[in-house]
Amino acid sequence: MSQQQMVEEIKGWVYEAGENIKRKLQSPLIVEEKTNKSDLVTNVDKETEAFFIDKIRHHYPDDQILGEEGLGDHVTDFSGRVWIIDPIDGTLNFVKQQDNFCTMLAVYEEGIGQMAFIYEVMRDELLWGGKGMGVYLNEQVIKDVPNITLEKGLISVNTHMFLNNTYETQTVAMKSIGVRMIGCAGIGFKELIKGNQNAYISNLQPWDYAPAKVLMEELGLKMIALNGEPLDLRQKVPILGATPAAFAEIQTRQN
Amino acid sequence: MSQQQMVEEIKGWVYEAGENIKRKLQSPLIVEEKTNKSDLVTNVDKETEAFFIDKIRHHYPDDQILGEEGLGDHVTDFSGRVWIIDPIDGTLNFVKQQDNFCTMLAVYEEGIGQMAFIYEVMRDELLWGGKGMGVYLNEQVIKDVPNITLEKGLISVNTHMFLNNTYETQTVAMKSIGVRMIGCAGIGFKELIKGNQNAYISNLQPWDYAPAKVLMEELGLKMIALNGEPLDLRQKVPILGATPAAFAEIQTRQN
Repeated sequence: MSQQQMVEEIKGWVYEAGENIKRKLQSPLIVEEKTNKSDLVTNVDKETEAFFIDKIRHHYPDDQILGEEGLGDHVTDFSGRVWIIDPIDGTLNFVKQQDNFCTMLAVYEEGIGQMAFIYEVMRDELLWGGKGMGVYLNEQVIKDVPNITLEKGLISVNTHMFLNNTYETQTVAMKSIGVRMIGCAGIGFKELIKGNQNAYISNLQPWDYAPAKVLMEELGLKMIALNGEPLDLRQKVPILGATPAAFAEIQTRQN
Repeated sequence: MSQQQMVEEIKGWVYEAGENIKRKLQSPLIVEEKTNKSDLVTNVDKETEAFFIDKIRHHYPDDQILGEEGLGDHVTDFSGRVWIIDPIDGTLNFVKQQDNFCTMLAVYEEGIGQMAFIYEVMRDELLWGGKGMGVYLNEQVIKDVPNITLEKGLISVNTHMFLNNTYETQTVAMKSIGVRMIGCAGIGFKELIKGNQNAYISNLQPWDYAPAKVLMEELGLKMIALNGEPLDLRQKVPILGATPAAFAEIQTRQN
Protein backbone atom coordinates (compact mmCIF):
# COMPACT_ATOMS: atom_id res chain seq x y z
CA MET A 1 0.00 0.00 0.00
CA SER A 2 1.40 3.42 -0.95
CA GLN A 3 1.74 6.23 1.57
CA GLN A 4 -1.05 8.03 -0.30
CA GLN A 5 -3.40 5.05 -0.06
CA MET A 6 -2.63 4.69 3.63
CA VAL A 7 -3.41 8.36 4.23
CA GLU A 8 -6.72 8.06 2.41
CA GLU A 9 -7.63 4.98 4.44
CA ILE A 10 -6.87 6.76 7.74
CA LYS A 11 -8.79 9.85 6.64
CA GLY A 12 -11.79 7.58 6.18
CA TRP A 13 -11.41 6.30 9.75
CA VAL A 14 -11.09 9.83 11.13
CA TYR A 15 -14.23 11.03 9.37
CA GLU A 16 -16.08 7.91 10.55
CA ALA A 17 -14.89 8.57 14.14
CA GLY A 18 -16.15 12.16 13.82
CA GLU A 19 -19.59 10.99 12.69
CA ASN A 20 -19.75 8.52 15.59
CA ILE A 21 -18.79 11.25 18.06
CA LYS A 22 -21.46 13.62 16.75
CA ARG A 23 -24.09 10.90 16.95
CA LYS A 24 -23.09 10.01 20.52
CA LEU A 25 -23.47 13.67 21.54
CA GLN A 26 -27.22 13.14 21.09
CA SER A 27 -27.24 10.89 24.20
CA PRO A 28 -26.13 11.76 27.75
CA LEU A 29 -22.39 11.32 28.26
CA ILE A 30 -20.93 9.13 31.00
CA VAL A 31 -18.30 11.39 32.56
CA GLU A 32 -15.58 10.37 35.04
CA GLU A 33 -12.79 12.37 36.67
CA LYS A 34 -9.22 11.19 36.08
CA THR A 35 -6.55 13.05 38.08
CA ASN A 36 -8.67 16.09 39.09
CA LYS A 37 -12.01 17.83 38.48
CA SER A 38 -10.91 19.37 35.17
CA ASP A 39 -9.26 16.17 33.86
CA LEU A 40 -12.24 14.23 32.51
CA VAL A 41 -12.86 11.13 30.47
CA THR A 42 -16.14 10.06 28.89
CA ASN A 43 -17.52 6.91 27.34
CA VAL A 44 -16.96 8.60 23.96
CA ASP A 45 -13.22 9.07 24.59
CA LYS A 46 -12.93 5.35 25.33
CA GLU A 47 -15.20 4.19 22.51
CA THR A 48 -13.37 6.38 19.99
CA GLU A 49 -9.98 5.06 21.09
CA ALA A 50 -11.34 1.50 20.84
CA PHE A 51 -12.68 2.28 17.33
CA PHE A 52 -9.24 3.41 16.10
CA ILE A 53 -7.45 0.51 17.81
CA ASP A 54 -9.81 -1.98 16.19
CA LYS A 55 -9.07 -0.52 12.74
CA ILE A 56 -5.32 -0.48 13.32
CA ARG A 57 -5.17 -4.02 14.77
CA HIS A 58 -7.14 -5.33 11.80
CA HIS A 59 -5.09 -3.61 9.09
CA TYR A 60 -1.67 -3.29 10.78
CA PRO A 61 -1.48 -6.14 13.31
CA ASP A 62 2.26 -5.83 13.92
CA ASP A 63 2.21 -2.15 14.95
CA GLN A 64 2.31 -0.66 18.45
CA ILE A 65 -0.41 1.73 19.63
CA LEU A 66 -0.09 4.50 22.21
CA GLY A 67 -3.52 5.83 23.18
CA GLU A 68 -4.49 8.47 25.73
CA GLU A 69 -7.02 6.20 27.42
CA GLY A 70 -4.56 3.31 27.74
CA LEU A 71 -6.50 0.81 25.62
CA GLY A 72 -3.48 0.30 23.34
CA ASP A 73 -0.02 -0.93 24.25
CA HIS A 74 2.34 0.12 27.02
CA VAL A 75 4.81 1.68 24.60
CA THR A 76 8.33 2.28 25.93
CA ASP A 77 10.27 1.66 22.73
CA PHE A 78 9.48 3.73 19.63
CA SER A 79 11.23 1.47 17.14
CA GLY A 80 9.06 0.15 14.31
CA ARG A 81 5.73 1.78 13.54
CA VAL A 82 3.80 3.37 16.41
CA TRP A 83 0.32 4.88 16.21
CA ILE A 84 -0.45 7.68 18.65
CA ILE A 85 -4.11 8.40 19.37
CA ASP A 86 -5.91 11.21 21.19
CA PRO A 87 -9.51 10.15 20.74
CA ILE A 88 -11.02 13.37 22.19
CA ASP A 89 -8.53 16.20 22.62
CA GLY A 90 -10.23 18.87 24.76
CA THR A 91 -12.50 16.55 26.75
CA LEU A 92 -13.48 19.37 29.14
CA ASN A 93 -14.78 21.39 26.17
CA PHE A 94 -16.42 18.25 24.79
CA VAL A 95 -18.32 17.76 28.06
CA LYS A 96 -19.16 21.41 28.81
CA GLN A 97 -19.59 22.87 25.30
CA GLN A 98 -20.11 19.86 23.02
CA ASP A 99 -17.72 21.78 20.81
CA ASN A 100 -14.11 22.97 20.49
CA PHE A 101 -12.51 19.51 20.60
CA CYS A 102 -10.52 17.40 18.14
CA THR A 103 -9.92 13.75 17.41
CA MET A 104 -6.24 13.23 16.54
CA LEU A 105 -3.97 10.50 15.27
CA ALA A 106 -0.30 10.31 14.28
CA VAL A 107 1.85 7.60 12.73
CA TYR A 108 5.54 7.48 13.69
CA GLU A 109 8.25 5.16 12.36
CA GLU A 110 11.50 4.71 14.27
CA GLY A 111 10.48 7.76 16.32
CA ILE A 112 10.04 9.96 13.27
CA GLY A 113 6.64 11.41 12.37
CA GLN A 114 5.26 10.09 9.08
CA MET A 115 1.65 11.27 8.93
CA ALA A 116 -0.84 13.05 11.13
CA PHE A 117 -4.52 13.97 11.39
CA ILE A 118 -6.09 16.70 13.53
CA TYR A 119 -9.86 16.77 13.05
CA GLU A 120 -11.94 19.52 14.67
CA VAL A 121 -15.16 17.59 14.52
CA MET A 122 -17.86 20.26 14.98
CA ARG A 123 -16.27 22.58 12.40
CA ASP A 124 -15.56 19.67 10.03
CA GLU A 125 -11.97 20.89 9.64
CA LEU A 126 -9.42 18.15 8.99
CA LEU A 127 -5.78 19.11 9.03
CA TRP A 128 -3.72 16.25 7.61
CA GLY A 129 -0.50 15.41 5.86
CA GLY A 130 2.95 14.16 6.60
CA LYS A 131 6.61 13.90 5.89
CA GLY A 132 7.28 14.75 2.26
CA MET A 133 3.61 14.88 1.33
CA GLY A 134 2.65 18.39 2.37
CA VAL A 135 -0.07 19.56 4.74
CA TYR A 136 -3.72 20.12 3.88
CA LEU A 137 -6.76 21.73 5.48
CA ASN A 138 -9.58 19.57 4.12
CA GLU A 139 -8.71 19.52 0.39
CA GLN A 140 -6.71 22.76 0.35
CA VAL A 141 -2.90 22.61 0.48
CA ILE A 142 -1.20 24.81 3.09
CA LYS A 143 1.90 26.52 1.75
CA ASP A 144 4.14 29.21 3.12
CA VAL A 145 2.65 29.69 6.59
CA PRO A 146 3.09 33.43 7.31
CA ASN A 147 6.09 33.96 9.58
CA ILE A 148 4.21 36.06 12.17
CA THR A 149 6.29 37.91 14.76
CA LEU A 150 5.41 37.97 18.45
CA GLU A 151 4.19 41.58 18.24
CA LYS A 152 1.91 41.02 15.24
CA GLY A 153 0.17 37.83 16.25
CA LEU A 154 -2.39 36.25 18.54
CA ILE A 155 -1.00 33.63 20.93
CA SER A 156 -2.66 30.64 22.64
CA VAL A 157 -1.44 29.67 26.09
CA ASN A 158 -2.14 27.38 29.01
CA THR A 159 -3.92 29.17 31.88
CA HIS A 160 -1.60 28.05 34.69
CA MET A 161 1.61 28.71 32.75
CA PHE A 162 0.27 32.19 31.92
CA LEU A 163 -0.78 32.93 35.49
CA ASN A 164 2.51 31.76 37.02
CA ASN A 165 4.67 33.12 34.18
CA THR A 166 6.22 29.65 33.86
CA TYR A 167 8.97 29.76 31.21
CA GLU A 168 8.12 33.46 30.70
CA THR A 169 4.73 32.48 29.24
CA GLN A 170 3.01 35.57 30.58
CA THR A 171 5.79 37.92 29.45
CA VAL A 172 5.74 36.42 25.98
CA ALA A 173 1.95 36.38 25.76
CA MET A 174 1.62 40.03 26.77
CA LYS A 175 4.01 41.01 23.94
CA SER A 176 1.52 39.48 21.51
CA ILE A 177 -1.43 41.36 20.08
CA GLY A 178 -3.92 39.21 21.96
CA VAL A 179 -4.04 36.19 24.28
CA ARG A 180 -6.35 33.25 23.65
CA MET A 181 -7.18 30.26 25.89
CA ILE A 182 -9.15 27.60 24.05
CA GLY A 183 -8.61 24.45 26.11
CA CYS A 184 -7.75 22.16 23.21
CA ALA A 185 -4.19 21.46 22.01
CA GLY A 186 -5.37 20.41 18.57
CA ILE A 187 -7.05 23.78 18.05
CA GLY A 188 -4.06 25.65 19.50
CA PHE A 189 -1.75 23.97 16.98
CA LYS A 190 -4.31 24.19 14.17
CA GLU A 191 -4.47 27.98 14.53
CA LEU A 192 -0.67 28.12 14.33
CA ILE A 193 -0.55 25.87 11.27
CA LYS A 194 -3.32 27.87 9.55
CA GLY A 195 -1.25 31.04 10.02
CA ASN A 196 -3.69 32.59 12.51
CA GLN A 197 -1.31 32.96 15.46
CA ASN A 198 2.37 33.24 16.32
CA ALA A 199 2.74 30.54 19.00
CA TYR A 200 1.08 28.01 21.29
CA ILE A 201 2.43 27.24 24.78
CA SER A 202 1.06 24.48 27.03
CA ASN A 203 1.88 21.46 29.19
CA LEU A 204 1.22 18.52 26.93
CA GLN A 205 1.18 14.75 26.82
CA PRO A 206 2.72 12.98 23.79
CA TRP A 207 -0.71 12.37 22.20
CA ASP A 208 -1.45 16.12 22.51
CA TYR A 209 1.61 17.24 20.55
CA ALA A 210 2.67 14.25 18.41
CA PRO A 211 0.25 14.90 15.50
CA ALA A 212 1.03 18.64 15.31
CA LYS A 213 4.78 17.89 15.43
CA VAL A 214 4.55 15.93 12.16
CA LEU A 215 2.65 18.67 10.34
CA MET A 216 4.74 21.51 11.77
CA GLU A 217 8.03 19.87 10.80
CA GLU A 218 6.75 19.48 7.25
CA LEU A 219 5.90 23.21 7.16
CA GLY A 220 9.10 24.51 8.79
CA LEU A 221 7.37 25.58 12.01
CA LYS A 222 9.17 25.13 15.33
CA MET A 223 8.35 22.89 18.30
CA ILE A 224 10.46 22.30 21.42
CA ALA A 225 10.06 21.26 25.05
CA LEU A 226 10.66 24.36 27.17
CA ASN A 227 12.40 22.34 29.87
CA GLY A 228 15.20 21.43 27.45
CA GLU A 229 14.20 17.75 27.24
CA PRO A 230 14.10 16.01 23.86
CA LEU A 231 10.60 15.39 22.47
CA ASP A 232 10.85 11.62 22.83
CA LEU A 233 7.09 10.89 23.12
CA ARG A 234 7.54 9.37 26.59
CA GLN A 235 6.35 12.07 28.98
CA LYS A 236 4.31 15.18 29.64
CA VAL A 237 6.38 18.29 28.89
CA PRO A 238 5.93 22.07 28.60
CA ILE A 239 5.72 22.65 24.84
CA LEU A 240 6.37 25.71 22.70
CA GLY A 241 5.11 25.63 19.13
CA ALA A 242 5.83 28.78 17.11
CA THR A 243 6.56 30.42 13.81
CA PRO A 244 10.33 30.74 13.21
CA ALA A 245 10.16 34.51 13.91
CA ALA A 246 8.25 34.18 17.18
CA PHE A 247 10.42 31.21 18.17
CA ALA A 248 13.60 33.26 17.82
CA GLU A 249 12.12 36.10 19.90
CA ILE A 250 10.91 33.75 22.63
CA GLN A 251 14.25 31.94 22.81
CA THR A 252 16.03 35.28 23.18
CA ARG A 253 13.77 36.23 26.07
CA GLN A 254 14.31 32.95 27.84
CA ASN A 255 18.10 33.00 27.63
CA MET B 1 -45.97 45.33 11.44
CA SER B 2 -46.05 42.78 14.25
CA GLN B 3 -43.06 42.15 16.50
CA GLN B 4 -42.75 38.72 14.85
CA GLN B 5 -42.66 40.23 11.35
CA MET B 6 -40.08 42.77 12.45
CA VAL B 7 -37.88 40.02 13.89
CA GLU B 8 -38.10 38.02 10.67
CA GLU B 9 -37.19 41.11 8.63
CA ILE B 10 -34.14 41.82 10.79
CA LYS B 11 -33.04 38.15 10.68
CA GLY B 12 -33.01 38.52 6.91
CA TRP B 13 -30.71 41.54 7.18
CA VAL B 14 -28.40 39.74 9.59
CA TYR B 15 -28.06 36.70 7.32
CA GLU B 16 -27.46 38.99 4.34
CA ALA B 17 -24.77 40.88 6.31
CA GLY B 18 -23.16 37.52 7.14
CA GLU B 19 -23.08 36.49 3.48
CA ASN B 20 -21.54 39.86 2.54
CA ILE B 21 -18.88 39.48 5.25
CA LYS B 22 -17.95 35.97 4.09
CA ARG B 23 -17.68 37.16 0.49
CA LYS B 24 -15.50 40.12 1.48
CA LEU B 25 -13.13 37.77 3.32
CA GLN B 26 -12.12 36.51 -0.13
CA SER B 27 -10.39 39.87 -0.80
CA PRO B 28 -7.60 41.54 1.22
CA LEU B 29 -8.92 43.56 4.16
CA ILE B 30 -8.10 47.23 4.66
CA VAL B 31 -7.08 47.37 8.33
CA GLU B 32 -6.58 50.50 10.47
CA GLU B 33 -5.66 50.90 14.13
CA LYS B 34 -8.10 52.82 16.33
CA THR B 35 -6.89 53.50 19.90
CA ASN B 36 -4.02 50.94 19.97
CA LYS B 37 -2.45 48.05 18.02
CA SER B 38 -5.06 45.54 19.18
CA ASP B 39 -8.05 47.86 18.57
CA LEU B 40 -8.63 47.47 14.84
CA VAL B 41 -11.21 48.48 12.30
CA THR B 42 -11.53 47.20 8.73
CA ASN B 43 -13.40 48.23 5.61
CA VAL B 44 -15.79 45.34 6.38
CA ASP B 45 -16.67 46.74 9.82
CA LYS B 46 -17.58 50.05 8.20
CA GLU B 47 -19.38 48.55 5.20
CA THR B 48 -21.41 46.23 7.42
CA GLU B 49 -22.43 49.09 9.72
CA ALA B 50 -23.40 51.14 6.64
CA PHE B 51 -25.42 48.16 5.33
CA PHE B 52 -27.47 47.94 8.55
CA ILE B 53 -27.92 51.72 8.76
CA ASP B 54 -29.18 51.84 5.19
CA LYS B 55 -31.79 49.15 5.96
CA ILE B 56 -32.89 50.87 9.18
CA ARG B 57 -33.08 54.37 7.67
CA HIS B 58 -35.18 53.03 4.80
CA HIS B 59 -37.66 51.04 6.94
CA TYR B 60 -37.58 52.99 10.21
CA PRO B 61 -36.63 56.58 9.28
CA ASP B 62 -37.60 58.07 12.65
CA ASP B 63 -35.36 55.85 14.78
CA GLN B 64 -31.97 56.63 16.28
CA ILE B 65 -28.94 54.43 15.54
CA LEU B 66 -25.90 53.85 17.76
CA GLY B 67 -23.16 52.08 15.82
CA GLU B 68 -19.64 51.09 16.90
CA GLU B 69 -18.03 52.76 13.90
CA GLY B 70 -19.90 56.03 14.42
CA LEU B 71 -21.77 56.04 11.10
CA GLY B 72 -25.12 56.37 12.88
CA ASP B 73 -26.29 59.07 15.25
CA HIS B 74 -24.62 60.65 18.24
CA VAL B 75 -27.07 59.10 20.69
CA THR B 76 -27.24 60.68 24.13
CA ASP B 77 -30.93 60.16 24.84
CA PHE B 78 -32.37 56.64 24.73
CA SER B 79 -36.02 57.68 24.52
CA GLY B 80 -37.94 56.33 21.52
CA ARG B 81 -36.55 53.44 19.52
CA VAL B 82 -32.77 53.06 19.30
CA TRP B 83 -30.90 50.50 17.22
CA ILE B 84 -27.50 49.41 18.54
CA ILE B 85 -25.09 47.87 16.03
CA ASP B 86 -21.77 46.05 16.40
CA PRO B 87 -21.01 45.25 12.77
CA ILE B 88 -17.99 43.03 13.53
CA ASP B 89 -17.60 42.07 17.18
CA GLY B 90 -14.12 40.57 17.60
CA THR B 91 -12.39 42.53 14.84
CA LEU B 92 -8.94 41.33 15.97
CA ASN B 93 -10.09 37.71 15.46
CA PHE B 94 -11.70 38.72 12.17
CA VAL B 95 -8.40 40.14 10.93
CA LYS B 96 -6.05 37.47 12.32
CA GLN B 97 -8.21 34.32 12.13
CA GLN B 98 -11.01 35.15 9.68
CA ASP B 99 -13.13 33.41 12.28
CA ASN B 100 -14.46 33.71 15.84
CA PHE B 101 -16.35 36.97 15.32
CA CYS B 102 -20.02 38.00 15.39
CA THR B 103 -22.24 40.58 13.78
CA MET B 104 -24.71 41.90 16.37
CA LEU B 105 -27.75 44.12 16.55
CA ALA B 106 -30.19 45.12 19.28
CA VAL B 107 -33.39 47.15 19.32
CA TYR B 108 -34.21 49.16 22.46
CA GLU B 109 -37.32 51.20 23.20
CA GLU B 110 -37.29 53.79 25.99
CA GLY B 111 -34.03 52.22 27.16
CA ILE B 112 -35.53 48.74 27.43
CA GLY B 113 -34.29 45.89 25.24
CA GLN B 114 -36.91 44.59 22.81
CA MET B 115 -35.06 42.25 20.44
CA ALA B 116 -31.52 41.17 19.74
CA PHE B 117 -29.41 39.22 17.26
CA ILE B 118 -25.94 37.71 17.83
CA TYR B 119 -24.72 35.98 14.68
CA GLU B 120 -21.48 34.00 14.73
CA VAL B 121 -20.97 34.16 11.01
CA MET B 122 -18.43 31.39 10.31
CA ARG B 123 -20.37 28.85 12.40
CA ASP B 124 -23.70 30.04 11.00
CA GLU B 125 -25.08 30.26 14.54
CA LEU B 126 -27.73 32.93 15.05
CA LEU B 127 -28.88 33.60 18.59
CA TRP B 128 -32.00 35.78 18.47
CA GLY B 129 -35.13 36.67 20.35
CA GLY B 130 -36.46 39.32 22.65
CA LYS B 131 -38.68 40.52 25.40
CA GLY B 132 -41.64 38.17 25.75
CA MET B 133 -40.81 36.20 22.64
CA GLY B 134 -38.22 33.74 23.92
CA VAL B 135 -34.66 33.11 22.74
CA TYR B 136 -33.62 30.86 19.87
CA LEU B 137 -30.42 29.35 18.54
CA ASN B 138 -31.15 29.18 14.82
CA GLU B 139 -34.61 27.54 14.82
CA GLN B 140 -34.27 25.82 18.22
CA VAL B 141 -35.84 27.44 21.28
CA ILE B 142 -33.58 27.84 24.35
CA LYS B 143 -35.36 26.99 27.59
CA ASP B 144 -34.16 26.53 31.13
CA VAL B 145 -30.49 27.48 30.77
CA PRO B 146 -28.69 25.20 33.25
CA ASN B 147 -27.89 27.14 36.43
CA ILE B 148 -24.17 26.25 36.47
CA THR B 149 -22.22 27.02 39.65
CA LEU B 150 -18.80 28.63 39.61
CA GLU B 151 -17.10 25.35 40.51
CA LYS B 152 -18.80 23.30 37.81
CA GLY B 153 -18.44 25.59 34.82
CA LEU B 154 -16.05 27.05 32.28
CA ILE B 155 -15.66 30.84 32.44
CA SER B 156 -14.66 33.38 29.77
CA VAL B 157 -12.70 36.43 30.88
CA ASN B 158 -10.85 39.47 29.60
CA THR B 159 -7.07 38.99 29.61
CA HIS B 160 -6.15 42.22 31.41
CA MET B 161 -8.86 41.87 34.06
CA PHE B 162 -7.67 38.30 34.69
CA LEU B 163 -4.01 39.27 34.86
CA ASN B 164 -4.60 42.21 37.22
CA ASN B 165 -7.34 40.47 39.22
CA THR B 166 -9.57 43.50 38.57
CA TYR B 167 -12.87 43.02 40.42
CA GLU B 168 -11.54 39.63 41.61
CA THR B 169 -11.67 38.32 38.04
CA GLN B 170 -8.66 36.05 38.51
CA THR B 171 -9.91 34.73 41.86
CA VAL B 172 -13.32 33.99 40.39
CA ALA B 173 -11.89 32.47 37.22
CA MET B 174 -9.56 30.13 39.11
CA LYS B 175 -12.54 28.77 41.08
CA SER B 176 -14.06 27.68 37.77
CA ILE B 177 -13.27 24.38 36.11
CA GLY B 178 -11.47 26.07 33.22
CA VAL B 179 -10.65 29.56 31.90
CA ARG B 180 -11.28 30.58 28.31
CA MET B 181 -10.23 33.73 26.43
CA ILE B 182 -11.88 34.01 23.05
CA GLY B 183 -11.60 37.70 22.15
CA CYS B 184 -15.23 38.18 21.13
CA ALA B 185 -17.99 39.40 23.48
CA GLY B 186 -20.70 37.89 21.30
CA ILE B 187 -19.17 34.44 21.65
CA GLY B 188 -18.53 34.93 25.39
CA PHE B 189 -22.22 35.71 25.92
CA LYS B 190 -23.37 33.07 23.43
CA GLU B 191 -21.57 30.34 25.40
CA LEU B 192 -23.30 31.57 28.57
CA ILE B 193 -26.73 31.66 26.91
CA LYS B 194 -26.22 28.19 25.41
CA GLY B 195 -25.51 26.84 28.90
CA ASN B 196 -21.85 26.08 28.17
CA GLN B 197 -20.28 28.28 30.85
CA ASN B 198 -21.03 29.92 34.19
CA ALA B 199 -19.99 33.54 33.51
CA TYR B 200 -18.35 36.06 31.21
CA ILE B 201 -16.34 39.01 32.52
CA SER B 202 -14.93 41.79 30.31
CA ASN B 203 -14.64 45.53 29.76
CA LEU B 204 -17.33 46.29 27.23
CA GLN B 205 -18.82 49.06 25.14
CA PRO B 206 -22.62 49.35 24.92
CA TRP B 207 -22.70 47.67 21.47
CA ASP B 208 -20.73 44.73 22.93
CA TYR B 209 -23.21 43.98 25.70
CA ALA B 210 -26.57 45.49 24.59
CA PRO B 211 -27.68 42.53 22.43
CA ALA B 212 -26.78 39.89 25.05
CA LYS B 213 -28.54 41.93 27.74
CA VAL B 214 -31.88 41.58 25.93
CA LEU B 215 -31.54 37.81 25.51
CA MET B 216 -30.19 37.21 29.02
CA GLU B 217 -33.00 39.18 30.66
CA GLU B 218 -35.53 37.08 28.76
CA LEU B 219 -33.84 33.90 30.06
CA GLY B 220 -33.37 34.99 33.68
CA LEU B 221 -29.58 35.26 33.40
CA LYS B 222 -27.76 38.07 35.25
CA MET B 223 -25.82 41.05 33.89
CA ILE B 224 -24.36 43.96 35.86
CA ALA B 225 -21.60 46.55 35.64
CA LEU B 226 -18.93 45.56 38.17
CA ASN B 227 -18.21 49.21 39.01
CA GLY B 228 -21.73 49.65 40.37
CA GLU B 229 -22.86 51.93 37.54
CA PRO B 230 -26.26 51.39 35.92
CA LEU B 231 -26.16 49.80 32.45
CA ASP B 232 -27.38 52.92 30.68
CA LEU B 233 -25.80 52.21 27.27
CA ARG B 234 -23.71 55.41 27.43
CA GLN B 235 -20.22 54.21 28.33
CA LYS B 236 -17.65 51.44 28.46
CA VAL B 237 -17.97 49.46 31.70
CA PRO B 238 -16.62 46.27 33.30
CA ILE B 239 -19.40 43.75 32.77
CA LEU B 240 -20.29 40.54 34.57
CA GLY B 241 -22.74 38.20 32.86
CA ALA B 242 -23.52 35.01 34.77
CA THR B 243 -25.93 32.27 35.68
CA PRO B 244 -27.90 33.12 38.83
CA ALA B 245 -25.85 30.59 40.85
CA ALA B 246 -22.46 31.88 39.68
CA PHE B 247 -23.69 35.47 40.05
CA ALA B 248 -24.55 34.93 43.72
CA GLU B 249 -21.15 33.35 44.41
CA ILE B 250 -19.26 36.13 42.62
CA GLN B 251 -21.21 38.86 44.42
CA THR B 252 -20.40 37.22 47.77
CA ARG B 253 -16.69 37.19 46.94
CA GLN B 254 -16.70 40.84 45.95
CA ASN B 255 -18.47 42.09 49.05
